[in-house]
Amino acid sequence: MVQIQSSMDSAKKQANPQEERDKEIKSTLGRIKHKFIVMSGKGGVGKTSTSVNLSLALSELGHRVGIMDVDLHGPDIPRMLGLSGMLDLGPNRKLNPMPYSKNLSAVSIESLTPSKDDAIIWRGPVKFSAIQQFIGDVEWGDLDFLLIDSPPGTGDEPLTVAQTIAEAKAIIVTTPQEVSLADVRKSISFCKTVKMEIFGLIENMSGFACPHCQSVIELFGSGGGEKTAAAAGIPFLGRIPFDTRVVECGDAGVSYRKQHGETPVSKAFDDIAKQMARLVQA
Amino acid sequence: MVQIQSSMDSAKKQANPQEERDKEIKSTLGRIKHKFIVMSGKGGVGKTSTSVNLSLALSELGHRVGIMDVDLHGPDIPRMLGLSGMLDLGPNRKLNPMPYSKNLSAVSIESLTPSKDDAIIWRGPVKFSAIQQFIGDVEWGDLDFLLIDSPPGTGDEPLTVAQTIAEAKAIIVTTPQEVSLADVRKSISFCKTVKMEIFGLIENMSGFACPHCQSVIELFGSGGGEKTAAAAGIPFLGRIPFDTRVVECGDAGVSYRKQHGETPVSKAFDDIAKQMARLVQA
Repeated sequence: MVQIQSSMDSAKKQANPQEERDKEIKSTLGRIKHKFIVMSGKGGVGKTSTSVNLSLALSELGHRVGIMDVDLHGPDIPRMLGLSGMLDLGPNRKLNPMPYSKNLSAVSIESLTPSKDDAIIWRGPVKFSAIQQFIGDVEWGDLDFLLIDSPPGTGDEPLTVAQTIAEAKAIIVTTPQEVSLADVRKSISFCKTVKMEIFGLIENMSGFACPHCQSVIELFGSGGGEKTAAAAGIPFLGRIPFDTRVVECGDAGVSYRKQHGETPVSKAFDDIAKQMARLVQA
Repeated sequence: MVQIQSSMDSAKKQANPQEERDKEIKSTLGRIKHKFIVMSGKGGVGKTSTSVNLSLALSELGHRVGIMDVDLHGPDIPRMLGLSGMLDLGPNRKLNPMPYSKNLSAVSIESLTPSKDDAIIWRGPVKFSAIQQFIGDVEWGDLDFLLIDSPPGTGDEPLTVAQTIAEAKAIIVTTPQEVSLADVRKSISFCKTVKMEIFGLIENMSGFACPHCQSVIELFGSGGGEKTAAAAGIPFLGRIPFDTRVVECGDAGVSYRKQHGETPVSKAFDDIAKQMARLVQA
Protein backbone atom coordinates (compact mmCIF):
# COMPACT_ATOMS: atom_id res chain seq x y z
CA MET A 1 0.00 0.00 0.00
CA VAL A 2 1.35 3.38 -0.96
CA GLN A 3 0.53 6.30 1.24
CA ILE A 4 -0.63 9.57 -0.25
CA GLN A 5 -1.64 12.08 2.33
CA SER A 6 -2.59 15.68 1.96
CA SER A 7 -1.71 18.33 4.48
CA MET A 8 -5.34 18.25 5.59
CA ASP A 9 -5.10 14.60 6.58
CA SER A 10 -2.00 15.43 8.51
CA ALA A 11 -3.68 18.27 10.33
CA LYS A 12 -6.50 15.97 11.32
CA LYS A 13 -4.09 13.27 12.49
CA GLN A 14 -2.45 15.60 14.98
CA ALA A 15 -4.64 14.63 17.87
CA ASN A 16 -2.36 16.47 20.30
CA PRO A 17 -2.16 20.17 19.69
CA GLN A 18 1.16 21.60 18.52
CA GLU A 19 1.80 22.98 22.00
CA GLU A 20 1.84 19.47 23.49
CA ARG A 21 4.22 18.30 20.75
CA ASP A 22 6.57 21.25 21.32
CA LYS A 23 6.79 20.26 25.00
CA GLU A 24 7.63 16.65 24.12
CA ILE A 25 10.26 17.78 21.63
CA LYS A 26 11.88 20.12 24.12
CA SER A 27 12.01 17.41 26.77
CA THR A 28 13.53 14.87 24.33
CA LEU A 29 16.13 17.30 23.03
CA GLY A 30 17.08 18.29 26.58
CA ARG A 31 18.49 14.78 27.12
CA ILE A 32 20.65 14.81 23.96
CA LYS A 33 23.97 16.60 24.28
CA HIS A 34 24.95 17.18 20.64
CA LYS A 35 22.81 17.17 17.52
CA PHE A 36 24.25 16.97 14.03
CA ILE A 37 22.46 17.05 10.72
CA VAL A 38 24.36 15.30 7.93
CA MET A 39 23.53 17.16 4.73
CA SER A 40 24.61 17.18 1.11
CA GLY A 41 23.88 19.50 -1.75
CA LYS A 42 23.65 16.59 -4.16
CA GLY A 43 22.53 13.01 -3.75
CA GLY A 44 24.74 9.97 -4.14
CA VAL A 45 27.76 11.50 -2.45
CA GLY A 46 27.74 8.89 0.32
CA LYS A 47 25.87 10.94 2.92
CA THR A 48 24.15 7.93 4.46
CA SER A 49 27.27 5.80 4.65
CA THR A 50 28.98 8.80 6.24
CA SER A 51 26.22 9.06 8.87
CA VAL A 52 26.44 5.33 9.56
CA ASN A 53 30.23 5.17 9.76
CA LEU A 54 30.52 8.27 11.96
CA SER A 55 27.82 6.89 14.28
CA LEU A 56 29.61 3.55 14.54
CA ALA A 57 32.94 5.25 15.20
CA LEU A 58 31.45 7.48 17.91
CA SER A 59 29.65 4.55 19.57
CA GLU A 60 32.89 2.54 19.57
CA LEU A 61 34.57 5.45 21.35
CA GLY A 62 32.04 4.79 24.14
CA HIS A 63 29.48 7.48 23.34
CA ARG A 64 25.74 6.91 23.30
CA VAL A 65 24.57 7.63 19.77
CA GLY A 66 21.23 7.81 17.96
CA ILE A 67 20.66 8.00 14.21
CA MET A 68 17.48 9.59 12.93
CA ASP A 69 16.79 8.92 9.25
CA VAL A 70 14.68 11.75 7.84
CA ASP A 71 15.43 10.89 4.20
CA LEU A 72 11.77 10.08 3.69
CA HIS A 73 12.13 9.23 0.00
CA GLY A 74 15.20 7.03 0.33
CA PRO A 75 15.54 5.76 3.89
CA ASP A 76 18.69 3.65 3.60
CA ILE A 77 19.87 3.66 7.21
CA PRO A 78 18.16 0.39 8.26
CA ARG A 79 19.54 -1.50 5.25
CA MET A 80 23.06 -0.22 5.86
CA LEU A 81 22.91 -1.20 9.53
CA GLY A 82 21.27 -4.55 8.75
CA LEU A 83 18.23 -3.60 10.83
CA SER A 84 14.68 -4.57 9.99
CA GLY A 85 11.25 -4.82 11.53
CA MET A 86 8.90 -2.26 12.92
CA LEU A 87 9.37 0.10 15.87
CA ASP A 88 7.96 -1.07 19.20
CA LEU A 89 5.73 1.03 21.35
CA GLY A 90 7.35 1.41 24.76
CA PRO A 91 6.08 2.73 28.09
CA ASN A 92 4.69 6.32 27.98
CA ARG A 93 3.25 5.41 24.55
CA LYS A 94 6.52 6.38 22.88
CA LEU A 95 8.29 4.52 20.08
CA ASN A 96 11.52 2.71 20.95
CA PRO A 97 14.35 3.26 18.46
CA MET A 98 15.79 0.09 16.90
CA PRO A 99 18.84 -1.05 18.86
CA TYR A 100 22.00 -1.79 16.81
CA SER A 101 24.40 -2.17 19.73
CA LYS A 102 24.57 -1.17 23.39
CA ASN A 103 25.50 2.38 22.40
CA LEU A 104 23.75 2.84 19.07
CA SER A 105 20.10 2.95 18.07
CA ALA A 106 18.22 4.19 15.02
CA VAL A 107 14.85 5.45 13.86
CA SER A 108 13.85 5.49 10.21
CA ILE A 109 10.67 6.14 8.30
CA GLU A 110 11.29 2.74 6.72
CA SER A 111 10.45 1.06 10.02
CA LEU A 112 7.00 2.61 9.87
CA THR A 113 6.05 1.43 6.36
CA PRO A 114 4.78 -2.11 5.87
CA SER A 115 6.65 -2.72 2.58
CA LYS A 116 10.17 -1.53 1.81
CA ASP A 117 9.35 -0.97 -1.86
CA ASP A 118 6.52 1.47 -1.19
CA ALA A 119 7.10 5.07 -2.12
CA ILE A 120 6.43 7.71 0.47
CA ILE A 121 4.50 10.32 -1.49
CA TRP A 122 4.11 13.10 1.01
CA ARG A 123 3.92 16.78 0.29
CA GLY A 124 5.83 19.20 2.52
CA PRO A 125 3.47 19.76 5.46
CA VAL A 126 3.19 16.03 6.16
CA LYS A 127 6.97 15.73 6.20
CA PHE A 128 7.14 18.49 8.80
CA SER A 129 4.76 16.58 11.02
CA ALA A 130 6.54 13.23 10.53
CA ILE A 131 9.94 14.68 11.42
CA GLN A 132 8.59 16.36 14.53
CA GLN A 133 7.14 13.01 15.61
CA PHE A 134 10.54 11.36 15.09
CA ILE A 135 11.85 13.63 17.81
CA GLY A 136 8.95 14.11 20.21
CA ASP A 137 7.35 10.67 20.02
CA VAL A 138 10.54 8.57 20.19
CA GLU A 139 12.11 7.39 23.43
CA TRP A 140 15.65 8.43 22.57
CA GLY A 141 16.77 8.55 26.20
CA ASP A 142 20.08 10.08 27.27
CA LEU A 143 22.39 10.48 24.29
CA ASP A 144 25.76 12.06 23.69
CA PHE A 145 25.10 12.41 19.95
CA LEU A 146 22.11 12.41 17.65
CA LEU A 147 23.02 12.20 13.95
CA ILE A 148 20.25 13.17 11.58
CA ASP A 149 20.57 11.80 8.07
CA SER A 150 18.68 14.18 5.80
CA PRO A 151 17.87 13.91 2.10
CA PRO A 152 20.06 15.85 -0.34
CA GLY A 153 19.25 19.48 -1.05
CA THR A 154 17.69 22.28 0.90
CA GLY A 155 14.05 21.29 1.03
CA ASP A 156 11.41 20.60 3.64
CA GLU A 157 13.38 18.04 5.65
CA PRO A 158 16.50 20.06 6.56
CA LEU A 159 14.33 23.16 6.96
CA THR A 160 12.13 21.33 9.47
CA VAL A 161 15.19 20.10 11.35
CA ALA A 162 16.62 23.63 11.46
CA GLN A 163 13.36 25.02 12.77
CA THR A 164 12.83 22.24 15.32
CA ILE A 165 16.40 21.82 16.63
CA ALA A 166 17.87 25.30 16.79
CA GLU A 167 21.19 24.06 18.21
CA ALA A 168 21.82 21.38 15.53
CA LYS A 169 25.16 21.66 13.74
CA ALA A 170 25.58 20.78 10.08
CA ILE A 171 28.07 18.30 8.63
CA ILE A 172 28.10 18.72 4.86
CA VAL A 173 29.24 15.82 2.67
CA THR A 174 30.40 16.27 -0.91
CA THR A 175 32.30 14.53 -3.66
CA PRO A 176 35.15 16.47 -5.26
CA GLN A 177 33.66 17.35 -8.65
CA GLU A 178 32.50 20.87 -9.49
CA VAL A 179 28.86 19.90 -10.09
CA SER A 180 28.73 18.60 -6.50
CA LEU A 181 30.57 21.60 -5.12
CA ALA A 182 28.13 23.99 -6.77
CA ASP A 183 25.37 22.26 -4.84
CA VAL A 184 27.42 22.31 -1.63
CA ARG A 185 27.63 26.08 -1.86
CA LYS A 186 23.84 26.07 -1.84
CA SER A 187 23.89 23.99 1.36
CA ILE A 188 26.29 26.49 2.93
CA SER A 189 24.02 29.36 1.88
CA PHE A 190 21.06 27.44 3.35
CA CYS A 191 22.81 27.05 6.73
CA LYS A 192 23.71 30.73 6.85
CA THR A 193 20.11 31.70 6.02
CA VAL A 194 18.54 29.51 8.69
CA LYS A 195 21.42 30.38 11.09
CA MET A 196 22.58 26.81 11.50
CA GLU A 197 26.18 26.38 12.64
CA ILE A 198 28.32 24.43 10.15
CA PHE A 199 30.54 21.94 11.96
CA GLY A 200 32.45 21.23 8.78
CA LEU A 201 32.75 19.71 5.34
CA ILE A 202 33.73 16.13 4.41
CA GLU A 203 35.05 15.21 0.95
CA ASN A 204 33.92 11.68 0.12
CA MET A 205 34.86 9.34 -2.77
CA SER A 206 38.15 11.17 -2.95
CA GLY A 207 40.67 9.06 -4.84
CA PHE A 208 40.46 5.35 -5.62
CA ALA A 209 43.21 2.77 -5.79
CA CYS A 210 42.65 0.32 -8.67
CA PRO A 211 42.37 -3.09 -6.99
CA HIS A 212 44.32 -4.63 -9.91
CA CYS A 213 47.25 -2.27 -10.54
CA GLN A 214 47.01 -0.04 -7.41
CA SER A 215 47.16 3.15 -9.51
CA VAL A 216 45.25 5.98 -7.89
CA ILE A 217 42.33 7.16 -10.04
CA GLU A 218 40.47 10.36 -9.26
CA LEU A 219 36.98 9.14 -10.15
CA PHE A 220 35.34 12.46 -9.39
CA GLY A 221 38.37 14.76 -9.39
CA SER A 222 40.12 15.71 -6.15
CA GLY A 223 40.72 18.50 -3.64
CA GLY A 224 37.59 20.50 -4.45
CA GLY A 225 36.06 19.96 -1.01
CA GLU A 226 38.97 21.46 0.87
CA LYS A 227 39.10 24.47 -1.46
CA THR A 228 35.35 25.04 -1.14
CA ALA A 229 35.56 24.85 2.66
CA ALA A 230 38.43 27.35 2.69
CA ALA A 231 36.58 29.72 0.36
CA ALA A 232 33.46 29.59 2.54
CA GLY A 233 35.44 29.92 5.79
CA ILE A 234 34.17 26.65 7.25
CA PRO A 235 36.23 23.79 8.78
CA PHE A 236 37.40 20.97 6.49
CA LEU A 237 36.93 17.74 8.43
CA GLY A 238 38.66 15.27 6.13
CA ARG A 239 38.84 13.26 2.96
CA ILE A 240 37.35 9.74 2.61
CA PRO A 241 38.75 7.59 -0.23
CA PHE A 242 36.48 5.60 -2.56
CA ASP A 243 36.39 1.92 -1.65
CA THR A 244 34.13 -0.55 -3.51
CA ARG A 245 33.81 -2.51 -0.24
CA VAL A 246 31.82 0.40 1.26
CA VAL A 247 29.22 -0.23 -1.46
CA GLU A 248 29.32 -4.01 -0.93
CA CYS A 249 28.94 -3.74 2.85
CA GLY A 250 26.16 -1.15 2.57
CA ASP A 251 24.28 -3.42 0.18
CA ALA A 252 24.77 -6.49 2.36
CA GLY A 253 23.86 -4.66 5.56
CA VAL A 254 27.12 -5.61 7.25
CA SER A 255 29.33 -3.16 9.07
CA TYR A 256 32.24 -1.97 6.91
CA ARG A 257 34.06 -1.01 10.11
CA LYS A 258 33.79 -4.53 11.53
CA GLN A 259 35.08 -6.13 8.32
CA HIS A 260 37.63 -3.50 7.35
CA GLY A 261 38.57 -1.63 10.53
CA GLU A 262 42.13 -0.84 9.50
CA THR A 263 41.58 0.60 6.02
CA PRO A 264 42.14 4.24 5.00
CA VAL A 265 38.35 4.69 4.92
CA SER A 266 37.85 3.53 8.53
CA LYS A 267 40.79 5.60 9.71
CA ALA A 268 39.41 8.71 8.02
CA PHE A 269 36.05 8.22 9.78
CA ASP A 270 37.81 7.63 13.12
CA ASP A 271 39.61 10.90 12.74
CA ILE A 272 36.40 12.84 12.07
CA ALA A 273 34.58 11.08 14.92
CA LYS A 274 37.36 12.20 17.26
CA GLN A 275 36.85 15.80 16.13
CA MET A 276 33.18 15.43 17.04
CA ALA A 277 33.94 13.71 20.33
CA ARG A 278 36.04 16.67 21.45
CA LEU A 279 32.76 18.58 21.82
CA VAL A 280 31.73 16.21 24.60
CA GLN A 281 35.01 16.43 26.45
CA ALA A 282 35.04 20.22 26.14
CA MET B 1 19.69 36.89 -1.68
CA VAL B 2 18.13 33.64 -0.61
CA GLN B 3 14.46 33.16 -1.17
CA ILE B 4 12.26 31.73 1.54
CA GLN B 5 8.62 31.72 0.68
CA SER B 6 5.69 30.23 2.45
CA SER B 7 2.74 28.70 0.72
CA MET B 8 0.75 31.80 1.58
CA ASP B 9 3.15 34.02 -0.36
CA SER B 10 2.79 31.66 -3.24
CA ALA B 11 -0.96 31.84 -3.22
CA LYS B 12 -0.79 35.62 -3.25
CA LYS B 13 1.69 35.64 -6.12
CA GLN B 14 -0.62 33.77 -8.44
CA ALA B 15 -2.10 36.83 -10.07
CA ASN B 16 -3.72 34.74 -12.79
CA PRO B 17 -6.26 32.32 -11.50
CA GLN B 18 -5.47 28.62 -11.80
CA GLU B 19 -7.98 28.28 -14.63
CA GLU B 20 -5.98 30.65 -16.83
CA ARG B 21 -2.80 28.74 -16.04
CA ASP B 22 -4.40 25.40 -16.87
CA LYS B 23 -5.36 26.76 -20.30
CA GLU B 24 -1.78 27.95 -20.97
CA ILE B 25 -0.39 24.60 -19.86
CA LYS B 26 -2.78 22.67 -22.10
CA SER B 27 -1.92 24.83 -25.10
CA THR B 28 1.84 24.46 -24.49
CA LEU B 29 1.64 20.70 -24.01
CA GLY B 30 -0.48 20.33 -27.17
CA ARG B 31 2.55 21.38 -29.23
CA ILE B 32 4.94 18.87 -27.66
CA LYS B 33 4.74 15.34 -29.04
CA HIS B 34 6.44 13.27 -26.36
CA LYS B 35 7.12 14.10 -22.74
CA PHE B 36 9.55 12.18 -20.58
CA ILE B 37 10.39 12.63 -16.93
CA VAL B 38 13.87 11.42 -16.02
CA MET B 39 13.67 10.15 -12.45
CA SER B 40 15.84 8.33 -9.97
CA GLY B 41 15.15 6.81 -6.61
CA LYS B 42 18.48 8.01 -5.28
CA GLY B 43 20.63 11.03 -6.04
CA GLY B 44 24.06 10.93 -7.62
CA VAL B 45 23.25 8.16 -10.08
CA GLY B 46 23.90 10.42 -13.07
CA LYS B 47 20.30 11.39 -13.77
CA THR B 48 21.20 14.86 -15.03
CA SER B 49 24.01 13.69 -17.29
CA THR B 50 21.59 11.08 -18.63
CA SER B 51 19.01 13.78 -19.39
CA VAL B 52 21.63 15.92 -21.10
CA ASN B 53 23.17 13.12 -23.14
CA LEU B 54 19.82 11.73 -24.26
CA SER B 55 18.68 15.22 -25.26
CA LEU B 56 21.84 15.81 -27.25
CA ALA B 57 21.55 12.43 -28.96
CA LEU B 58 17.89 13.05 -29.88
CA SER B 59 18.63 16.55 -31.19
CA GLU B 60 21.49 15.18 -33.31
CA LEU B 61 19.04 12.69 -34.80
CA GLY B 62 17.18 15.78 -36.06
CA HIS B 63 14.46 16.02 -33.42
CA ARG B 64 13.42 19.24 -31.73
CA VAL B 65 14.12 18.79 -28.03
CA GLY B 66 13.52 20.80 -24.87
CA ILE B 67 14.98 20.13 -21.41
CA MET B 68 13.10 21.35 -18.37
CA ASP B 69 15.13 21.28 -15.15
CA VAL B 70 12.79 20.93 -12.18
CA ASP B 71 15.53 19.87 -9.76
CA LEU B 72 14.95 23.02 -7.76
CA HIS B 73 17.57 22.23 -5.10
CA GLY B 74 20.34 21.21 -7.47
CA PRO B 75 19.70 22.62 -10.94
CA ASP B 76 22.75 21.30 -12.81
CA ILE B 77 21.45 21.34 -16.39
CA PRO B 78 22.78 24.84 -17.31
CA ARG B 79 26.27 24.03 -15.99
CA MET B 80 26.40 20.73 -17.87
CA LEU B 81 25.31 22.39 -21.10
CA GLY B 82 27.62 25.36 -20.58
CA LEU B 83 24.63 27.74 -20.56
CA SER B 84 24.38 30.82 -18.38
CA GLY B 85 22.46 34.03 -18.06
CA MET B 86 18.83 34.76 -17.35
CA LEU B 87 15.77 33.85 -19.40
CA ASP B 88 14.47 36.52 -21.80
CA LEU B 89 10.90 37.61 -21.94
CA GLY B 90 9.59 37.06 -25.47
CA PRO B 91 6.42 38.15 -27.24
CA ASN B 92 3.15 37.16 -25.50
CA ARG B 93 4.98 37.89 -22.21
CA LYS B 94 6.34 34.35 -22.17
CA LEU B 95 9.85 33.28 -21.20
CA ASN B 96 12.12 32.04 -23.98
CA PRO B 97 14.05 28.88 -23.15
CA MET B 98 17.85 29.14 -23.41
CA PRO B 99 18.99 27.95 -26.84
CA TYR B 100 21.81 25.38 -26.88
CA SER B 101 21.64 24.53 -30.57
CA LYS B 102 19.15 24.80 -33.41
CA ASN B 103 17.27 21.78 -32.10
CA LEU B 104 17.83 21.98 -28.36
CA SER B 105 16.78 24.49 -25.72
CA ALA B 106 16.55 24.42 -21.93
CA VAL B 107 14.79 26.00 -18.98
CA SER B 108 16.15 25.77 -15.45
CA ILE B 109 15.31 27.35 -12.14
CA GLU B 110 18.96 28.39 -12.03
CA SER B 111 18.30 30.90 -14.81
CA LEU B 112 15.78 32.63 -12.57
CA THR B 113 18.03 33.08 -9.52
CA PRO B 114 20.51 35.97 -9.42
CA SER B 115 23.36 34.01 -7.77
CA LYS B 116 24.23 30.40 -8.56
CA ASP B 117 25.27 29.74 -4.95
CA ASP B 118 21.93 30.70 -3.47
CA ALA B 119 19.81 27.94 -2.01
CA ILE B 120 16.22 27.65 -3.13
CA ILE B 121 14.39 27.12 0.15
CA TRP B 122 10.85 26.51 -1.00
CA ARG B 123 8.26 24.38 0.67
CA GLY B 124 6.07 22.11 -1.44
CA PRO B 125 3.25 24.41 -2.60
CA VAL B 126 5.69 26.94 -4.05
CA LYS B 127 7.42 24.19 -6.01
CA PHE B 128 4.07 23.19 -7.49
CA SER B 129 3.52 26.71 -8.71
CA ALA B 130 7.07 27.11 -10.08
CA ILE B 131 6.87 23.89 -12.07
CA GLN B 132 3.51 24.80 -13.53
CA GLN B 133 5.00 28.13 -14.65
CA PHE B 134 7.90 26.30 -16.31
CA ILE B 135 5.33 24.72 -18.59
CA GLY B 136 2.62 27.33 -19.05
CA ASP B 137 4.73 30.49 -19.04
CA VAL B 138 7.55 29.26 -21.30
CA GLU B 139 7.51 29.58 -25.08
CA TRP B 140 8.55 26.00 -25.81
CA GLY B 141 7.13 26.05 -29.35
CA ASP B 142 6.76 22.89 -31.43
CA LEU B 143 8.83 20.07 -29.94
CA ASP B 144 9.25 16.38 -30.65
CA PHE B 145 10.53 15.70 -27.15
CA LEU B 146 10.46 17.40 -23.78
CA LEU B 147 12.79 15.82 -21.21
CA ILE B 148 12.08 16.80 -17.63
CA ASP B 149 15.00 16.39 -15.24
CA SER B 150 13.50 15.89 -11.79
CA PRO B 151 15.19 15.69 -8.39
CA PRO B 152 15.76 12.23 -6.90
CA GLY B 153 12.98 10.62 -4.94
CA THR B 154 9.23 10.71 -5.04
CA GLY B 155 8.44 14.14 -3.64
CA ASP B 156 6.66 17.28 -4.73
CA GLU B 157 8.46 17.76 -8.05
CA PRO B 158 7.70 14.42 -9.77
CA LEU B 159 4.24 14.45 -8.19
CA THR B 160 3.55 17.87 -9.71
CA VAL B 161 4.81 16.71 -13.11
CA ALA B 162 2.60 13.61 -12.93
CA GLN B 163 -0.43 15.70 -12.04
CA THR B 164 0.25 18.37 -14.67
CA ILE B 165 1.37 16.19 -17.61
CA ALA B 166 -0.80 13.10 -17.51
CA GLU B 167 0.80 11.61 -20.63
CA ALA B 168 4.43 11.95 -19.44
CA LYS B 169 6.43 8.71 -19.51
CA ALA B 170 9.07 7.92 -16.91
CA ILE B 171 12.69 7.00 -17.59
CA ILE B 172 14.22 5.74 -14.36
CA VAL B 173 17.99 5.93 -13.87
CA THR B 174 19.85 3.81 -11.34
CA THR B 175 23.31 2.60 -10.46
CA PRO B 176 23.74 -1.16 -9.99
CA GLN B 177 24.09 -1.42 -6.21
CA GLU B 178 21.32 -2.76 -4.00
CA VAL B 179 20.90 0.45 -1.99
CA SER B 180 20.11 2.27 -5.26
CA LEU B 181 17.85 -0.48 -6.49
CA ALA B 182 15.83 -0.40 -3.28
CA ASP B 183 15.12 3.25 -4.01
CA VAL B 184 14.33 2.49 -7.67
CA ARG B 185 11.63 0.10 -6.56
CA LYS B 186 10.09 3.05 -4.73
CA SER B 187 10.15 5.07 -7.99
CA ILE B 188 8.42 2.20 -9.78
CA SER B 189 5.81 2.02 -7.01
CA PHE B 190 5.38 5.81 -7.32
CA CYS B 191 4.73 5.58 -11.08
CA LYS B 192 2.20 2.83 -10.61
CA THR B 193 0.41 4.83 -7.92
CA VAL B 194 0.15 8.01 -9.97
CA LYS B 195 -0.54 5.92 -13.11
CA MET B 196 2.50 7.19 -15.01
CA GLU B 197 3.71 4.92 -17.80
CA ILE B 198 7.30 3.73 -17.31
CA PHE B 199 9.23 3.91 -20.57
CA GLY B 200 12.10 1.98 -19.05
CA LEU B 201 15.09 1.69 -16.74
CA ILE B 202 18.70 2.72 -17.42
CA GLU B 203 21.63 1.29 -15.44
CA ASN B 204 24.32 3.97 -15.15
CA MET B 205 27.92 3.79 -13.85
CA SER B 206 27.90 0.15 -14.80
CA GLY B 207 31.47 -1.14 -15.02
CA PHE B 208 34.64 0.95 -15.28
CA ALA B 209 37.83 0.23 -17.19
CA CYS B 210 40.92 1.28 -15.17
CA PRO B 211 42.63 3.88 -17.37
CA HIS B 212 46.05 2.48 -16.31
CA CYS B 213 45.66 -1.31 -16.56
CA GLN B 214 42.30 -1.54 -18.45
CA SER B 215 40.93 -4.04 -15.92
CA VAL B 216 37.18 -3.75 -15.56
CA ILE B 217 36.14 -2.73 -12.05
CA GLU B 218 32.53 -2.90 -10.92
CA LEU B 219 32.52 0.26 -8.81
CA PHE B 220 28.91 -0.14 -7.74
CA GLY B 221 28.34 -3.81 -8.60
CA SER B 222 26.72 -4.84 -11.87
CA GLY B 223 23.57 -6.21 -13.49
CA GLY B 224 21.17 -5.14 -10.74
CA GLY B 225 19.30 -2.72 -13.01
CA GLU B 226 18.38 -5.34 -15.58
CA LYS B 227 17.25 -7.77 -12.88
CA THR B 228 15.14 -5.10 -11.18
CA ALA B 229 13.51 -4.14 -14.50
CA ALA B 230 12.72 -7.77 -15.23
CA ALA B 231 11.28 -8.32 -11.75
CA ALA B 232 9.07 -5.23 -12.09
CA GLY B 233 8.03 -6.10 -15.64
CA ILE B 234 9.35 -2.86 -17.14
CA PRO B 235 11.64 -2.43 -20.19
CA PHE B 236 15.40 -2.33 -19.62
CA LEU B 237 16.78 0.40 -21.88
CA GLY B 238 20.50 -0.15 -21.47
CA ARG B 239 23.68 0.00 -19.45
CA ILE B 240 25.98 3.08 -19.42
CA PRO B 241 29.58 2.45 -18.32
CA PHE B 242 31.35 4.73 -15.82
CA ASP B 243 33.74 7.14 -17.52
CA THR B 244 35.64 9.79 -15.55
CA ARG B 245 35.44 12.04 -18.63
CA VAL B 246 31.66 12.33 -18.13
CA VAL B 247 32.45 13.97 -14.77
CA GLU B 248 35.15 16.20 -16.29
CA CYS B 249 32.95 17.36 -19.16
CA GLY B 250 29.96 17.96 -16.89
CA ASP B 251 32.14 20.08 -14.59
CA ALA B 252 33.64 22.03 -17.47
CA GLY B 253 30.29 22.56 -19.19
CA VAL B 254 31.51 21.02 -22.44
CA SER B 255 29.62 18.39 -24.36
CA TYR B 256 30.92 14.89 -23.67
CA ARG B 257 29.34 13.77 -26.96
CA LYS B 258 31.26 16.35 -28.96
CA GLN B 259 34.58 15.42 -27.35
CA HIS B 260 34.04 11.69 -27.07
CA GLY B 261 31.41 10.73 -29.64
CA GLU B 262 32.74 7.25 -30.34
CA THR B 263 33.09 5.92 -26.79
CA PRO B 264 30.99 3.12 -25.23
CA VAL B 265 29.17 5.80 -23.19
CA SER B 266 28.10 7.81 -26.26
CA LYS B 267 27.11 4.66 -28.12
CA ALA B 268 24.97 3.52 -25.19
CA PHE B 269 23.14 6.86 -25.15
CA ASP B 270 22.68 6.73 -28.95
CA ASP B 271 21.05 3.36 -28.61
CA ILE B 272 18.59 4.57 -25.96
CA ALA B 273 17.82 7.76 -27.94
CA LYS B 274 16.93 5.58 -30.92
CA GLN B 275 14.50 3.61 -28.75
CA MET B 276 12.85 6.92 -27.82
CA ALA B 277 12.89 8.19 -31.40
CA ARG B 278 10.88 5.16 -32.53
CA LEU B 279 7.92 6.71 -30.74
CA VAL B 280 7.97 9.61 -33.19
CA GLN B 281 8.19 7.40 -36.26
CA ALA B 282 5.43 5.16 -34.97
